[in-house]
Amino acid sequence: MTDKCVCLLSGGMDSATVATLASKEGYECYALSFDYGQRHKKELKSASEIAQRLNIQHKIVMINLEDIAYSALTGHGEVDKRNIDSIRSEIPNTYVPSRNIMFLSIAASYAESIGAREIFIGANAIDYSGYPDCRPEFYNKFEIALNTGTKAGNFRIRVPLQYLSKRDIVKLATKIGAPLELTTSCYEGSDLACGHCDSCQLRLRGFMEAGIKDPIRYNSYPDFYKKWLENI
Amino acid sequence: MTDKCVCLLSGGMDSATVATLASKEGYECYALSFDYGQRHKKELKSASEIAQRLNIQHKIVMINLEDIAYSALTGHGEVDKRNIDSIRSEIPNTYVPSRNIMFLSIAASYAESIGAREIFIGANAIDYSGYPDCRPEFYNKFEIALNTGTKAGNFRIRVPLQYLSKRDIVKLATKIGAPLELTTSCYEGSDLACGHCDSCQLRLRGFMEAGIKDPIRYNSYPDFYKKWLENI
Repeated sequence: MTDKCVCLLSGGMDSATVATLASKEGYECYALSFDYGQRHKKELKSASEIAQRLNIQHKIVMINLEDIAYSALTGHGEVDKRNIDSIRSEIPNTYVPSRNIMFLSIAASYAESIGAREIFIGANAIDYSGYPDCRPEFYNKFEIALNTGTKAGNFRIRVPLQYLSKRDIVKLATKIGAPLELTTSCYEGSDLACGHCDSCQLRLRGFMEAGIKDPIRYNSYPDFYKKWLENI
Repeated sequence: MTDKCVCLLSGGMDSATVATLASKEGYECYALSFDYGQRHKKELKSASEIAQRLNIQHKIVMINLEDIAYSALTGHGEVDKRNIDSIRSEIPNTYVPSRNIMFLSIAASYAESIGAREIFIGANAIDYSGYPDCRPEFYNKFEIALNTGTKAGNFRIRVPLQYLSKRDIVKLATKIGAPLELTTSCYEGSDLACGHCDSCQLRLRGFMEAGIKDPIRYNSYPDFYKKWLENI
């Protein structure tokens, strides 16, 4: 019998890579996305398309966090657009309080229900843009809590991109054939990616450093990427 | 400035007692309830009434767990109705996988958003009916995970009923004036409490042992309570 796993699938590049990885590892994948009032709801469409392409199960959990979790991503203020070099210096206003904690908890409930023991999440600690729930030590501690507080116990939180830079993620994704062209990273949620929010800039720098052109469409490129494009 | 706290308020006896306690401790309380597809949605009405009586803020988070968290409480199978003496022997089918973990995670997000550091939950380990996410060691471990994975950190999970029996909870609730007459404990969710599910039986035994009549109305009483009523 194939082992089951639950994959958190936001619709972004990292989670698409992780879902592809889990599939390639031979798991029967159950992808989970969240409609939580995020301004970039477009990522849910991407998530569905990615799941379809990978031929894996997919569910979207609705949870009205707008009133609960204050963040620029849930409509509280404008999304930060910082200089690429200052992005890692402090926690941005797109931080959704304990978002990964909530999502992992719900994923654990789903995993326990379907008899899966592995939960995959696309967090990474290098270009993590300052989110505390992307810290490696958090995952270890959460896993311990989870295994104490559930009937099944014995869960493993798998964070395969934990120590990879965006550049390495682009390379890995390309190598394993993750459908990067279907992914959405922009926080603004317009039809075309804005190219200037933290998320767009980190993504584009990753592609640039990997020497690979980003296949998705942007409204406009940041200067560093424009310059690079002109020189290749 | 008054310290804020978030109280998980299911609408049952334990959470009503805890919310009353937190109010009495002088906190500015923000109560949180969950509409997660539970069969006993009646408890949400109770939660609203309790919050109103205690004059505290109250929000209901909607989250469609029916498809995610398999449990008799979310419509997967019938609710256990066991003999009162066997209730503590195994985890019942009303166990919702990692429910308290999910609820605490969302409470933490809310707490971080409003600047609260204390999160109150009405779990107790004595008559806990076998739920693993009511175990004391779980709360310690979850608190550690939470403080590692959030920007604010420094959260405290308060579980004041942890080591109290239902009898002691009834006594405490009565002493501090918790509105027990507004609470709902029955898993069946009908207008009148069934009197025979695990939850009703544990509640009635608690009242009986405290020597206090349960103020809410039942469809019918279990034998042990009936016998007691006849003898007082």
